Amino acid sequence: MTTARPFQAPSADTGERTAPVGVIRVLTSGDPALVNDHGRLLTERYGFPTVSRCIPDQPDGIHDDATHRTAEPKIVALARELAAEGVGTIVISCAADPALDETRAAVGVPVVGAGSAAAALALGLGRRIGVLGIREEAPPAVAALLGTRLAGSARPEGVRGTRDLRTPEGAEAAVAAAARLVERGADTLLLACTGLTSIGVRSRLEAALGVPVVDPVLAAGLVAAYRRTA
Amino acid sequence: MTTARPFQAPSADTGERTAPVGVIRVLTSGDPALVNDHGRLLTERYGFPTVSRCIPDQPDGIHDDATHRTAEPKIVALARELAAEGVGTIVISCAADPALDETRAAVGVPVVGAGSAAAALALGLGRRIGVLGIREEAPPAVAALLGTRLAGSARPEGVRGTRDLRTPEGAEAAVAAAARLVERGADTLLLACTGLTSIGVRSRLEAALGVPVVDPVLAAGLVAAYRRTA
Repeated sequence: MTTARPFQAPSADTGERTAPVGVIRVLTSGDPALVNDHGRLLTERYGFPTVSRCIPDQPDGIHDDATHRTAEPKIVALARELAAEGVGTIVISCAADPALDETRAAVGVPVVGAGSAAAALALGLGRRIGVLGIREEAPPAVAALLGTRLAGSARPEGVRGTRDLRTPEGAEAAVAAAARLVERGADTLLLACTGLTSIGVRSRLEAALGVPVVDPVLAAGLVAAYRRTA
Repeated sequence: MTTARPFQAPSADTGERTAPVGVIRVLTSGDPALVNDHGRLLTERYGFPTVSRCIPDQPDGIHDDATHRTAEPKIVALARELAAEGVGTIVISCAADPALDETRAAVGVPVVGAGSAAAALALGLGRRIGVLGIREEAPPAVAALLGTRLAGSARPEGVRGTRDLRTPEGAEAAVAAAARLVERGADTLLLACTGLTSIGVRSRLEAALGVPVVDPVLAAGLVAAYRRTA
C-alpha cells in the first residue's frame, strides 16, 4: 500500500505545462470576484495558476440559441488575446461548449470545453446520466457525447438564466429538479450550467441524493490538469 | 490572476474520500514492484493512497476474449475483498473494462474502469480519437463510448500481449503504430492497454507526435480523484 503524498508537479517544463490556464467566462461582469470565481476554484482544487476574462456585453450570459450565437465570435477573440498573452491552456467555462471547435482552430494551445469535459467525466462515472441545466434540453454538445447514456434532462422550476440560480429559491429548485432525475433512474448527474458551480450546489446534491454529481468547471479543470502533466 | 498553490485536500471527510483507492491488476505477478506500479503512479500523480492486488492465475493478463471472460469473476471477487477491507474507490486497471458493470453491482463503493475513464478523457480533449492497443480492434467498452469519434485503432507490430510491450522492440513498434494513427487523422491518442502505462510511453509519444495521449491508468486516477472531492 502506498501512503498519501502531496500532489507532485510534473518534471517536464514546457510553456504549456507551467503557464497559467486562461478561463473564459461567458457572463459579462465588472465584479472581479465574480469573473474570477471559477479560476479561483480551479487553483484551489488543482493547484495551477489561472487568468480569467469575461466576454463583453452579455450580462445574462448564454441562456438560449441567440445568446449562444452572439457569444461565439467574442469567445474566439478572447481566446486569441489570452493565447497571445501566453496562457498554456484555455478553458471555455460554459457547459454549452460555445465556439469550442472554432476556438481550437484559432489558437495553438489546448482548449477545453466545460460541457464536453463534464460529459466525459460523467461517462467515466456512470451509465445513466441525468442532465440538470437552465434549459429543458441538455446542451447539444453534451447530448452528442452522452449518446444513449443520456437518461434525461431537467431545468429547475422558475429558472431561466444563471442569475435566477443565485437566489435561495433557485438553489432549492435545482435540488428538487435533480431529485426528479434520480427518481427517473439517473445514476450520475451532470450540472449543465456553470452557474450551478457558482452557487456551490454539488456537495449538497451528492449528500442529499447519493449519486456522483459532475461539476462542469471542476471537470474542465481535471482535463486541463491532465494536459499539464506528461 | 491566481498563483499556483499546492493541491488542497477537500474538507469533507467521509470514508469514500479518505480511504485508499483499491487498484485491481488483471495481470498475475509475484513481484510486488510490478503489482504496485500503477498504484504508485497514481499516488505520485494525484496524492491519494492506494492498495493494489492482482487476480490469480493470469500471468499473461487479458489479451483476448477467453482471458477476458476468465478474468471477470476473479475481478468481482477481488473487488469484494477490497471493499470489505475498507477501500473508498476501486479502479479496475485494464483498458477493456472487464467486469465493470458486475463489479459496480457487487460493491457499495464507486468503481472506475480504466477503459471508460480513458475514453471519457479523450472525448474531453479531441474529436478524432486513435486507439493504440494490443488487439487490432479497440476494446468494445472504449469503442462504445467513443462512438463516431473513434478515428481508428492499431496494434504495434509483433505485439500480442503486455509482455511483448516490455521489450525495446515492443516500445519502438508502439511508437510506429501511434504515428500511423496520427497520419490517418487522429487528433488525440488513447492507450488501450495499461501495459503501455507500465512502459512509460506517453511522454515519448506526445513529444514525437504533438497530440495529446491519454493514459488509461492516469485517466482512471483523474476520475477517482474527482470522486474523492466534493
